[in-house]
Amino acid sequence: MTAGHRPQLLKVQSFNVTADGVAAGEDQTLERPFGHVDPDRLFAWCEATAGWPHRTGPGGSRGLDDHLARDFHHGIGAEIMGRNKFGPQRGPWRDEEWKGWWGEEPPFHTPVFVLTHHERPSFTLSDTTFHFLDADPATALARAKEAAEGKDVRLGGGVTTVREFLDADLVDTLHVAVSPVEAGTGLRLWDSPEELTDRFHLDVVPSPSGVTHHLFWRK
Amino acid sequence: MTAGHRPQLLKVQSFNVTADGVAAGEDQTLERPFGHVDPDRLFAWCEATAGWPHRTGPGGSRGLDDHLARDFHHGIGAEIMGRNKFGPQRGPWRDEEWKGWWGEEPPFHTPVFVLTHHERPSFTLSDTTFHFLDADPATALARAKEAAEGKDVRLGGGVTTVREFLDADLVDTLHVAVSPVEAGTGLRLWDSPEELTDRFHLDVVPSPSGVTHHLFWRK
Repeated sequence: MTAGHRPQLLKVQSFNVTADGVAAGEDQTLERPFGHVDPDRLFAWCEATAGWPHRTGPGGSRGLDDHLARDFHHGIGAEIMGRNKFGPQRGPWRDEEWKGWWGEEPPFHTPVFVLTHHERPSFTLSDTTFHFLDADPATALARAKEAAEGKDVRLGGGVTTVREFLDADLVDTLHVAVSPVEAGTGLRLWDSPEELTDRFHLDVVPSPSGVTHHLFWRK
Repeated sequence: MTAGHRPQLLKVQSFNVTADGVAAGEDQTLERPFGHVDPDRLFAWCEATAGWPHRTGPGGSRGLDDHLARDFHHGIGAEIMGRNKFGPQRGPWRDEEWKGWWGEEPPFHTPVFVLTHHERPSFTLSDTTFHFLDADPATALARAKEAAEGKDVRLGGGVTTVREFLDADLVDTLHVAVSPVEAGTGLRLWDSPEELTDRFHLDVVPSPSGVTHHLFWRK
């Protein structure tokens, strides 16, 4: 589980929730990956940063939000995601045409392990290779750590997957950005961040942009 | 000055000052690189982080301070430093035995350009090569950017050097950690951070550790 003396961590990076803890609506569709929750309101803080990968022009902030958003890639050698982050389909694959939401240049640049009860062959887009695994969290993490070659592993979501790995006590650090909007209903990461403070240290860091960054690391 | 479409920045990273803006004493000696200012009080916040390079055991915080301290190396391809950061000698070199404060494994891992009126031959320790330049700030920056091969350049200090590059308007971002101690006298970065806000945006971010991170980026 380690490379040399450096521990390999499982990290949740730049994960966005509403003030009431909701990460996505329950009504995910092809057109609305986050269901009734408006992703623009959740992602506004990172879209304003200089490091936002989809930025087309110069400019953008280089303050606190930018520092934290850039951390997304630092030292990461693999990602684990749930099937609902990969696509809106449920059940057996009708075909294997669907290759994720991200087009020909997915923003991961590492191996990605998609957890699903319905495995399918691996494929590569640019420098990202997607593998499909029917495995419990601990087994999936062992596979991802091996693929990460000593680097850390990002737990990419969705929220159901993050909760499963938290329940299995496999997560080492979380960076959760809490936006000042309420969703009312939806898939919740938590009722309150305090749910995690028995197991994690927590830095609560308000940003001038309006989001409040929550930085957790294992006790 | 650019590699592809990515601008190369000149960045001050994890620079430490007291609440009254002092970065070092004026009475630097071999035994006391920071003069009468106690470096342990300035550096305490980064020494407590998991990413501190001199950490000998596991543990350490992985919160806000750790995120910012780790930024020290991210995307950096060269460092510029003043002669007083390199050593306590003044005037012509009596010999060239002095190779910096950092022993056989300097923490830079890139080319380092030492500004001095008294040039001497370059030398390499581990993966850090020190060059000695008698040049104005703009010329030194051009040399460092070329050596950085598209990555950013860190302006390492000391405080006199940082002020010279600020006066020449060559600095793109600064991360200054302000510690809750007063020095009274010494070499000042500023009387107040507000001195820079005509030219820079500023995020002021208090950390639970007691330091207040100041993140500046050019308007």
